[in-house]
Amino acid sequence: MPPSLTAALAEAIVAARPEADTAAMAAARRALVDFLACAFAGSRDRTVATVRTGMGDTPGRSPVIGSARPAEPQLAALLNGYAGHVLDYDDVHASVRGHPTTVIVPALLAALDPEAPPSAEAFLAAYLVGLETMAHLGRAIGPAHYERGFHATATLGPLGAAAAIAHLRGFSAETTAIALGLGATQAAGLRLQFGFDAKPLHAGLAARNGLIAARLAEAGLSGAPESLAGAAGFFEAYGFGEAKPERVLEEWGAPWQILRPGLTLKAFPCCTAAHPVAVAGLAFHRDGWRDVARATITFPPGGDAALVVRAPRTGIEARFSPEYILAAALVDGAVRLDHFDERPVRSELAALAERVERRHDTAAPRLTSDPGTRFVVVELADQQGRTAQRRIDGLPGLDDPDAKFRDAKAGSDALQAVPHLVRTMRTPGDLARLLQLLAQP
Amino acid sequence: MPPSLTAALAEAIVAARPEADTAAMAAARRALVDFLACAFAGSRDRTVATVRTGMGDTPGRSPVIGSARPAEPQLAALLNGYAGHVLDYDDVHASVRGHPTTVIVPALLAALDPEAPPSAEAFLAAYLVGLETMAHLGRAIGPAHYERGFHATATLGPLGAAAAIAHLRGFSAETTAIALGLGATQAAGLRLQFGFDAKPLHAGLAARNGLIAARLAEAGLSGAPESLAGAAGFFEAYGFGEAKPERVLEEWGAPWQILRPGLTLKAFPCCTAAHPVAVAGLAFHRDGWRDVARATITFPPGGDAALVVRAPRTGIEARFSPEYILAAALVDGAVRLDHFDERPVRSELAALAERVERRHDTAAPRLTSDPGTRFVVVELADQQGRTAQRRIDGLPGLDDPDAKFRDAKAGSDALQAVPHLVRTMRTPGDLARLLQLLAQP
Repeated sequence: MPPSLTAALAEAIVAARPEADTAAMAAARRALVDFLACAFAGSRDRTVATVRTGMGDTPGRSPVIGSARPAEPQLAALLNGYAGHVLDYDDVHASVRGHPTTVIVPALLAALDPEAPPSAEAFLAAYLVGLETMAHLGRAIGPAHYERGFHATATLGPLGAAAAIAHLRGFSAETTAIALGLGATQAAGLRLQFGFDAKPLHAGLAARNGLIAARLAEAGLSGAPESLAGAAGFFEAYGFGEAKPERVLEEWGAPWQILRPGLTLKAFPCCTAAHPVAVAGLAFHRDGWRDVARATITFPPGGDAALVVRAPRTGIEARFSPEYILAAALVDGAVRLDHFDERPVRSELAALAERVERRHDTAAPRLTSDPGTRFVVVELADQQGRTAQRRIDGLPGLDDPDAKFRDAKAGSDALQAVPHLVRTMRTPGDLARLLQLLAQP
Repeated sequence: MPPSLTAALAEAIVAARPEADTAAMAAARRALVDFLACAFAGSRDRTVATVRTGMGDTPGRSPVIGSARPAEPQLAALLNGYAGHVLDYDDVHASVRGHPTTVIVPALLAALDPEAPPSAEAFLAAYLVGLETMAHLGRAIGPAHYERGFHATATLGPLGAAAAIAHLRGFSAETTAIALGLGATQAAGLRLQFGFDAKPLHAGLAARNGLIAARLAEAGLSGAPESLAGAAGFFEAYGFGEAKPERVLEEWGAPWQILRPGLTLKAFPCCTAAHPVAVAGLAFHRDGWRDVARATITFPPGGDAALVVRAPRTGIEARFSPEYILAAALVDGAVRLDHFDERPVRSELAALAERVERRHDTAAPRLTSDPGTRFVVVELADQQGRTAQRRIDGLPGLDDPDAKFRDAKAGSDALQAVPHLVRTMRTPGDLARLLQLLAQP
């Protein structure tokens, strides 16, 4: 019998050696700095305490980012995943069509023994394996999974997190396959929660569920060895008939998905699908556009599926409103954290957002996980009837997460050492030092 | 604007008064005795310790059935749901197409304060509301949800459990709607895990996820008020195009779903879909059939979707093999717990199971949640070519769970008081007494 798809993926997870790829490891270090910027800033969000209290606040030894109180591992995974995603400022990957790092890193942090951590290089390599897994699954499951209702961060996350932990802890291929199945059988998260606290909760739940999947497989709980392919498998259950399971292992690690199509570090603290809109708006602002009478934003079909809000009431809802984000860019010449907090939206920006129309270019290819399908066209008209137009292709990202870390105003002076430490860490001692810094409030 | 579907369901959950229905309350008491029989017997399964260790074994105050060590509420919900389902001996409901009690009761037990419990009647009423919710959702989501891959116990369970807790704790309709959405966004569990430890894990996870949904909604976490209906809603995401959301509130509480179509208490510790096969086999045994040369089992289309095993290797796998179950009934004249434990299957039974053929009556209506669509026809032939045939319609159940509780050999002598206590309990003091008994190892 040929090996099953899940067995083949498990073999690839076990055998992967991303630490040999200098560029991939450097990208992993940048991703970790960027994630920590988001998580430290997010740890100060009012709702983090709501989650911690609501979940029962069980103490333990696992680090909770930005908190002096470590927690039981499952709670720590959940809180760190939540904090990393609550500002919607964390990285995004086109193959995943979601946010891999805020699931994988919290799961890995909770899976290690804080008093006997693995080497920092092994930690980063495990992260890359988790990302590779999540990205390959995302590419294979097809666009309908997301468009018809699922939040891919949440559904693919438990599998990616389980893969990362399996690699870190040196599971056999058999145990890894069972861990993947225990992740697949916890895949959940509906996109209708976008704009609510439940959205970042998805990231935390995915991290925790991936941790549980790995832990129970390691403890010896039995599960289906094949969970992905076949009738009633993960891809059939969640793919709406568009999944291509045979793609899962295509180009595995060649190159690593963190390099191509690449992980996008977010330049703006709002939903990724609106980032090209922000770039266009900022460029118009730089060009001196001020009195905008009306505007049109054109997307490819499906390009605004995540942008579920047209008239936001609060900054939280505004993260998902391209109309409001365009208004912010045009008026303020900036798209900042303070546009997207819990306060009511600014009336001046809301009034301009009302004059923005959304359209779809039905002649363009539907948005897929291929970043080449992503574009927006923004057209402005002023009071005198003058118009201008900009087209932004692909997804603009951030090169330097160190500045973002500084801007996140992360805690104490000691934290200023984090970006350098992450860029250079190699040994278990280095990782232990990072774990100590994470617990700085 | 008309109230949304989720809001209307939430209103019904808040307003329900099942305690006024004597027959429904009596059925709830029988269901609880039956569940406790399964959970006490299940608590001695070898794998319970694996789950407890793998999950981190966090101590707390919530009762763990059959254990002197109470646990943190989420872990208690998970362990009790697991123990209740691990023997696949717990009740089943046709509208759910799964096992409601082993999700709802563990969630309710974990949601209450063991030192200040509600009245026993309020507890039973909340269970009925959870069951009603889960059953109405199951009827509305349609047959493809289960057939194409999902374990309805696991996917509908978090919503039913959240509804039960919302009712018990007197949530507003708004908070109840958010709790339902937080349940819907954790709906997961793949049927491909049938035959593995991951299957009872699903019940535990569903109980725990429903608890979390209710807890976080109560703590004030925001979530989508409408999660069931509409494009990209729960029914679209999970229904494979066959859901009928408009059916959710049809005949709510009129009569209660525990009375019609009714909850089936399992007479045999194996997958429900094979129970009519066991009944037919036992009848043939009573009639003196011994030397069976070959047999045929005919199902309606979809009637054996859960029966995923043809040639089991262990008793655990045999729970899902109608061929083996027929063999056990014919040879032993009984279908008992010891047919379905972790030991290898008996070679004598396996040899007979190999001579059993499975067929489908393609002229019959496909199996749906309507129990009237369920039947099997079993045909035997002996060495001399004599044949006989039996048809079993519907799903045979158990009337007296007290005997099942005794047969489960549940722990200490003190436990013999449980069936009577459950049948008569009314006050908070009665429920407190039950909670103490649950902690008997």
